[in-house]
Formats: sequence, structure tokens, C-alpha cells
Amino acid sequence: MLKYPDAKVIPLGIGDTTERIPEVITTAMAERAKALSTKKGYSGYGAEQGEKQLRAAIASTFYQNLGIEEDDIFVSDGAKSDISRLQVLFGSKVSMAVQDPSYPAYVDSSVILGQTGLYQKDVERFAKIEYMRCTPENDFFPDLSNVARTDIIFFCSPNNPTGSAASREQLTQLVQFAKDNGSIIVYDSAYAMYVSEDKPRSIFEIPGAEEVALEVSSFSKYAGFTGVRLGWTVVPKQLKYSDGFPVANDFNRIVCTAFNGASNIAQAGGLACLSPEGIKAMHEVVGFYKENTKIIMDTFNSLGFNVYGGVNAPYVWVHFPGRSSWEVFGEILEKTHVVTTPGSGFGPAGEGFVRVSAFGNRENVLEACKRFKELYK
Amino acid sequence: MLKYPDAKVIPLGIGDTTERIPEVITTAMAERAKALSTKKGYSGYGAEQGEKQLRAAIASTFYQNLGIEEDDIFVSDGAKSDISRLQVLFGSKVSMAVQDPSYPAYVDSSVILGQTGLYQKDVERFAKIEYMRCTPENDFFPDLSNVARTDIIFFCSPNNPTGSAASREQLTQLVQFAKDNGSIIVYDSAYAMYVSEDKPRSIFEIPGAEEVALEVSSFSKYAGFTGVRLGWTVVPKQLKYSDGFPVANDFNRIVCTAFNGASNIAQAGGLACLSPEGIKAMHEVVGFYKENTKIIMDTFNSLGFNVYGGVNAPYVWVHFPGRSSWEVFGEILEKTHVVTTPGSGFGPAGEGFVRVSAFGNRENVLEACKRFKELYK
Repeated sequence: MLKYPDAKVIPLGIGDTTERIPEVITTAMAERAKALSTKKGYSGYGAEQGEKQLRAAIASTFYQNLGIEEDDIFVSDGAKSDISRLQVLFGSKVSMAVQDPSYPAYVDSSVILGQTGLYQKDVERFAKIEYMRCTPENDFFPDLSNVARTDIIFFCSPNNPTGSAASREQLTQLVQFAKDNGSIIVYDSAYAMYVSEDKPRSIFEIPGAEEVALEVSSFSKYAGFTGVRLGWTVVPKQLKYSDGFPVANDFNRIVCTAFNGASNIAQAGGLACLSPEGIKAMHEVVGFYKENTKIIMDTFNSLGFNVYGGVNAPYVWVHFPGRSSWEVFGEILEKTHVVTTPGSGFGPAGEGFVRVSAFGNRENVLEACKRFKELYK
Repeated sequence: MLKYPDAKVIPLGIGDTTERIPEVITTAMAERAKALSTKKGYSGYGAEQGEKQLRAAIASTFYQNLGIEEDDIFVSDGAKSDISRLQVLFGSKVSMAVQDPSYPAYVDSSVILGQTGLYQKDVERFAKIEYMRCTPENDFFPDLSNVARTDIIFFCSPNNPTGSAASREQLTQLVQFAKDNGSIIVYDSAYAMYVSEDKPRSIFEIPGAEEVALEVSSFSKYAGFTGVRLGWTVVPKQLKYSDGFPVANDFNRIVCTAFNGASNIAQAGGLACLSPEGIKAMHEVVGFYKENTKIIMDTFNSLGFNVYGGVNAPYVWVHFPGRSSWEVFGEILEKTHVVTTPGSGFGPAGEGFVRVSAFGNRENVLEACKRFKELYK
């Protein structure tokens, strides 16, 4: 921006929502805010785990018939915060595995808690983390026969950044792998509403998953809540340590000590999201970004690139074989003034890829695609 | 409540606010919420550290002329969350000191991070924590000549639960003690607006404190934000490790990895709190609870008890010499149906005391005091 002060820079880098929050949701938040000035509507500390009605609505909306109950849901201020609270729960002595590439918060929070060794520059990895390579060659699902046993397995599906959603069969393998190894899966389903194909939207669709997995999720990408801050974590009561003690009891202790509940106004918004009108409105938001995704995918496909993701996620993962992600990122930024994200920032297996986010307004997405076509025609 | 289903139980236990949030503040939050449905008013991810305008307003309202600048302020979802984020920053290998008695989150978060040894039942303390005894005998300020050197010193003033506010001279001693020992003070000033006497409202009123202290605070008890969730932490850029690296740089890393900013709607409320009308309204809220405090203090004084706190804090610390806190708590609950908090829950030096919170509506406080008078006349 210093170099080209007049350039219209288009941000398709970080996955930041751009579209208005549907009115049915903001009206509920505004009403809750105003009610806080009334004797009847005022409320102080809520339950650290979230308001009962919201926990029940999350359970029935996203986990109907999956054996997940209201008291398995812990409402939070977002998945990112909960990932770090989970790391505090796990402590510094656990070993962990992550998809490579994946959302950086898993590795970063692990490093901060002291679970890892030093960064090894030659292989671009932190020591003591098991990187599960996910590339087009293995359909973005790790070859579990080559994955070392760890205490914790972070798994994000639909994946950020590759946009790939694991199939039922793949997740069944993952659950069995965790069961065989006595591992806990931290399943990140923050993009589940973007799934179009017949693929699981929750790890709890896999029988037995409740014994080996917990799940973090968020309203951010469904309702444009990136700034409002609201998410949740499911810790099923069937998930137990080897000594039979429920993990949920420990997580409850962490939540009560390290957190004081999500904002009551945001929770009112979450409840509105899960009303029939709210669900319809969220699908419209998701549908809008999915149209963006298609426009971006079609563009790169038409230019002859190998394009991944997109179908079940708001991220398009474009392959530039043999090139450095940062170099391609720089080329795109320099020549089109569009900000993308270099794939290698998500892990060494992201090298040679660039992530294009579909979170943007339509005009910007169309303009960005026009510029991509000029650059790579 | 099972035993006396018809009893009108009055909660003066946990410090939960009961009074309506002033309209100037909720109006701003409602407007921000509604604006999120407009193209112009929508915002996604904000800065993890908080909105620039709010950071500036906090710096100028609470730290004018104290050398604290906008970029030293980290806006959060509350002091409790920030205390745990600070513990993640410090890690498991530090040693810590706490006032005894004090707000349990300091010790609890330290235990969770693995900084302590096991709980020692005989002395009712966790091993490896330095408990700084604060009782009427030492004017609720520790005898620092008997305090062992630790890496971290948690210090809450006005104190929860004793209601005692440290003097300028005492805090000057504390800062010098930290300087001599290379310790970091985590100063909790969540009740600063309740100070009536000429005592510091911030540790940064003490010259040189910016080199040894950081400060956590909150809108909870000023504006009734216990449910809205908004606080802040000040990490001055002058606060450095012994190798010269700024603590703020590490805290910034933690905040960016473990947190995604406070709710934008809550931040709009915070900004309204710091407008001239908002400040006036907060003083009215604080004034209301201070009147409650006086009513409770006068009651116990008239009954011949030794009563502490109250003047600079919304907590009254009542001495029942020779008796167990839990026994007194049970007696009060059983005979008056008023919930207080047993002092020993805040640390072994709280034994023999009961904390009565002034957070309640006037009718309840008057009724509770009437019942206290009947019980202890």
C-alpha cells in the first residue's frame, strides 16, 4: 500500500467475514442489550458454560440424534479461545498430531504451552509434533499407517486451509485409530455448514466417536460473528481418561477458572441464529460465500490450475507446482493487488499452494477474479 | 432451599451485580448490534488487542499522566480470562505469591498451570505458593520482610475479599520489593472506582511501577458488565524480563493466539462507559453499591462486631474470632437465609471471617441487615 498508494487492494487473505449479520439476529442482540437497562431484563454473571437455552438449542440443531446432550455443550467466545483452553487442559506433557497443512492456532498454542521442541528450520517443523501430511496424493487424508501415536490429534474438517472435507469412511478410520492408540481427537468443525456433499458435519456422526473425540465449533462463519465472538465446544460425558475420569469434568474446571462465559448479548444472538428464521438466514449467508467460492474455483479451473477445496468449504486451495508459496503470494499481490495466503504458512505440506478465501463482498471477488484472469491468462 | 422451600433466600455471596446498566451504555450497545446488519456498520474480526478508540479511552480515563499509553492497553473479555492468559504467559516453572486471603482465581489458575505442589491439608495451602498473610494485625498488608522472593506477585487492591485498599506508602514498599527481587507484580484493580480515601487507584501511581508491574481491571463492577464481559490488562512497554525483552511482546503473542478480541458490541459499551455521561453513570452505579456497603457495615458495627473493608470496596469483612468461617456461614444461612461467603474459602488467613457482598438490590440488603440484627442482637 506504500508502494501503490492508489491501488485498490482486495483482501482475500484471512477468512474474515464481510457480509451483514441478518436482522433477525442483530435485533435479538439489540433487544437483549436494551433489556439490560431494565429491572426485569438485567442479568449479571451467567453460567460459565453458557445459557441453558442456548446449550439446548446447539445440541438439538447440530447434534440431533447423535447422542450429544445439552450438558455436553460448553458455549464460548470462539473456537480459537477454546483451543487454547483445551491446551491448558492437556498441559505441557502431552504429544500432539496435526494435519499438515492446518489452521496455525493448533501448533501455536501447543508451542506456547511447551508441548513441543524447538523449531527445526531445515524441515520447517517444530520438534515433537506429528505432522500428518495432507496433499492431493492422499486425498488430503493422512496415511494413518505412517502416523505415530500421540495423546492428542487435532483434526479440522472441512479443513482450513485445504477446503477438503473428510468422508465418513475416512473419519471412521480416524476414530478407530484414536481408539486403538488411546488418543483424544480435537475435531474442529467450524466450517461444517459449508458441506455440500454427503459428508459428515460432525465427528459424532461416526459411531463410537463420543468415546475418543471432542468438537470445537463457532458461529463466526455461519452468521458473520467474527467480531461478535461466539462458539462452542462439545465434550461428551462418554469421553474419559484411561482411569475412567470424564474429560468434561476437567474442562468444566478450566472453563470455570479461566473464563466467565460468553457475552450475554452474543448469546442472545446465538439463540436467534438457531430459531427457524435464524437458521434460514445463516444458510443464506453460507450460500452467498459458497457462490463466491464457486466463482473463484471456476476462475482458477478455467486458467488450467489444479484447484482443491471449495466444494465443502469457503477456501480454494490452488496448486502452483514447483513454486514457493510466498513467491506466488508476492506475485499475486504485486501484480493484482489481491491478498491471498501463502500455503506454507499452514505447514510444510502447504508449500506450492496458495489459499484464496471466499470471504469477501461480491464486487471484490469478481474484480479479484478478473485480475487473476489477466495475470494468468 | 430444599429444606425451606418458602424461604426468601438473599444472595450476598458471590459479587454479582444486580443493578441495571445505565441507558447511555446499553443504547450504544444496541446501536452497535443493529449496525452490524448494515453494510456501513458491519465489522468482522477486530484487533485482538481491542479497538483503538477504546484502548485510547481507557488509557486517558484511568491512566492520565501515569505514563500509560494506548498501546499498553489490551482489551479483554474480563479480568478472570486475562489472569489465566497471564498464567499461560508465565508458564509452569514460575513461583508465585498471593495475598492470603485473596480472590481464588490466582491460586486456582496457578494450580492448573502446574506451578504449585500438592494441596497440604494440614495447613490448607498448596505447596510452592507463597501466601502473604493479610489480617487486621498487619493492616491487611503483608510483612514483606517475611515474604520469600517469587517470580510473580499477585496483588489485589482494593482487595477481594477483605475490602482493604493499600496506601501509597505500602504500594511503594511493594514496588521496591519487586524491584529488589526481580519479580513481576500482577496488580488487580477491578475495584479501583470504589476507593473513597486518598489511596492509589492504580499501581502506576507509584513511581517506577511500570518497570515491575502489570495491571488487570474490568468494567464488571463499574457498569454492571458481569454478564456483558469486558475488561483490560495494562502491560507497560517498560516492563521487561532480565534479558531486556518486553513482557508486552509475549503477552501480545498470547492474546493473538489464545483470544480473538472482546465482542465488538461489548467494546461499544465500554466506549460509552468512558464518555462523560458514561463516567457519570458509572459513578452512580458505584455510589449505589457503596451505600449498600455502608448499610451493611453500620449493621455489623452496631452489633459490636469488628468490621473491616467497606470504605474503599464493595465487600464487608466481618470477624467472628475463634469461630470457623464455614460454621458462621452455615449459621447465617440457616437462621437468616442470607448467603454470605466463608472467609476461609479465600485462603487460610480468612478463617474466622465472613465476607458480605454489597452487590444486591436495596430492598434485599435492608432485609438482610434486619435479619442480621435479629440473629446477633
